[in-house]
Amino acid sequence: MQRIDSFPLFVEPFHVDFNRRIFMGVLCNAMLNAAGKHSHNRGWGIPDLMKEGYTWVLSRFSVEFGRMPEMGETCNIATWVNSAIRLFTNRYFRIDDAEGTPIAYCRSVWAMINVETRKPADLLTFRNGELNTWKVSEEEAPCPIADMRPIRNKEATLARSLQTYYSDVDINGHINSVKYIEHIVNLFTNEELTRGIRRIDIAYKAEAYQGDTLLFFTHREDANTLLVDVRKENGDVCVQSRILLHTAPQENNEDKQTTK
Amino acid sequence: MQRIDSFPLFVEPFHVDFNRRIFMGVLCNAMLNAAGKHSHNRGWGIPDLMKEGYTWVLSRFSVEFGRMPEMGETCNIATWVNSAIRLFTNRYFRIDDAEGTPIAYCRSVWAMINVETRKPADLLTFRNGELNTWKVSEEEAPCPIADMRPIRNKEATLARSLQTYYSDVDINGHINSVKYIEHIVNLFTNEELTRGIRRIDIAYKAEAYQGDTLLFFTHREDANTLLVDVRKENGDVCVQSRILLHTAPQENNEDKQTTK
Repeated sequence: MQRIDSFPLFVEPFHVDFNRRIFMGVLCNAMLNAAGKHSHNRGWGIPDLMKEGYTWVLSRFSVEFGRMPEMGETCNIATWVNSAIRLFTNRYFRIDDAEGTPIAYCRSVWAMINVETRKPADLLTFRNGELNTWKVSEEEAPCPIADMRPIRNKEATLARSLQTYYSDVDINGHINSVKYIEHIVNLFTNEELTRGIRRIDIAYKAEAYQGDTLLFFTHREDANTLLVDVRKENGDVCVQSRILLHTAPQENNEDKQTTK
Repeated sequence: MQRIDSFPLFVEPFHVDFNRRIFMGVLCNAMLNAAGKHSHNRGWGIPDLMKEGYTWVLSRFSVEFGRMPEMGETCNIATWVNSAIRLFTNRYFRIDDAEGTPIAYCRSVWAMINVETRKPADLLTFRNGELNTWKVSEEEAPCPIADMRPIRNKEATLARSLQTYYSDVDINGHINSVKYIEHIVNLFTNEELTRGIRRIDIAYKAEAYQGDTLLFFTHREDANTLLVDVRKENGDVCVQSRILLHTAPQENNEDKQTTK
């Protein structure tokens, strides 16, 4: 069986921002859906796992862009499993433009948990370690972006608080992973978003639920980098993130190579 | 040239709510994207029109559901132009399940405006009335739902106020038509959303912009019907809407016919 799956993504006019670039949330949703289909094609999708009482949980997500896909463009999202250790698996992504030139890469880390006990499964033994048979090494399919650096956001100050609603919640009743990204992107000014986001690192720490108030604590790590913690009113940290902006405005259709 | 276009819609796991039904916002976005592609295929898409200084503006949108598409299902969205009078065109939609059984219908009304003057174009003469050549009569393609009834919401009281952000704004810098729908759906309780939405009527009256505070005024017209006005702080009404709930919980996969 092939180990890398690819899914086309057409950038619809109702899915782009005022710069005619795809919304980060729409793109990340498409990536998670690609991951879901890659798993489903192997009988390991969330609906398959739920029959056995398990589900996938996203733990870390790092995506780095040369540029964002633009209105009318057809991109391609490739995804594969790079490795698995006992409790975590690394899933990588590459986004290519229509000519096959990479414009973004992503590294993500997932756990599989028991839906009752919330305890992680041992991925090396679950279903006799079948997950290992789809691994694609770095040599076979490179993902040339750095790993996530630790995020320490001790000096953060409250930038925004938000009530959560029905539309923030996923199939499991938790605040959707991508909704955090949307709310974090909304913290930036239009001038900053016109420059564009070069990289997002996000670590998911604790679940939040519909109706929870989310507090967004920010700290500017350097001129182009914002750290954002999302906390609940009780102080629990749900998400830690680092967002790196491009230093100059993204030139539409000119900077086609991913920055590497 | 064929006059009705159809587009498949696969219901992704990251696009469904806690009832495993597609989010209303995701579905309405897919419908507007289908409209965009139908227009684009005839050289009348927003990017085409913008070259001549015009754009499409959604004026009214009525959608009635037998049931909502569910996770893992592949539906089909068909759309066509039913009629055009001088300043408005009626676009209809039908959503079929994988077996071709209709599960929803939609009637929408659009104007084409000059982006500078904001004045509507005469659709009967624009490009020599070419729009009329794609009309599909009610006999050829029925859309068996009622027209929108007038919405009078004089007794409404303030239910929620919301700040708008970058992610609420479309390519033209206005609050996105579908974002109003998402915010309106968020006004309902989970119990009501489990019963499900049977019909939404929405009339777009005035534009709002990023940073505007939106005020949601509601009035219960009857046991199953909520009227929602969305107003700006200066009192301008942006949107008037009527939402009709199903009387009993939607049975997954049982009530396949649209209510007619």
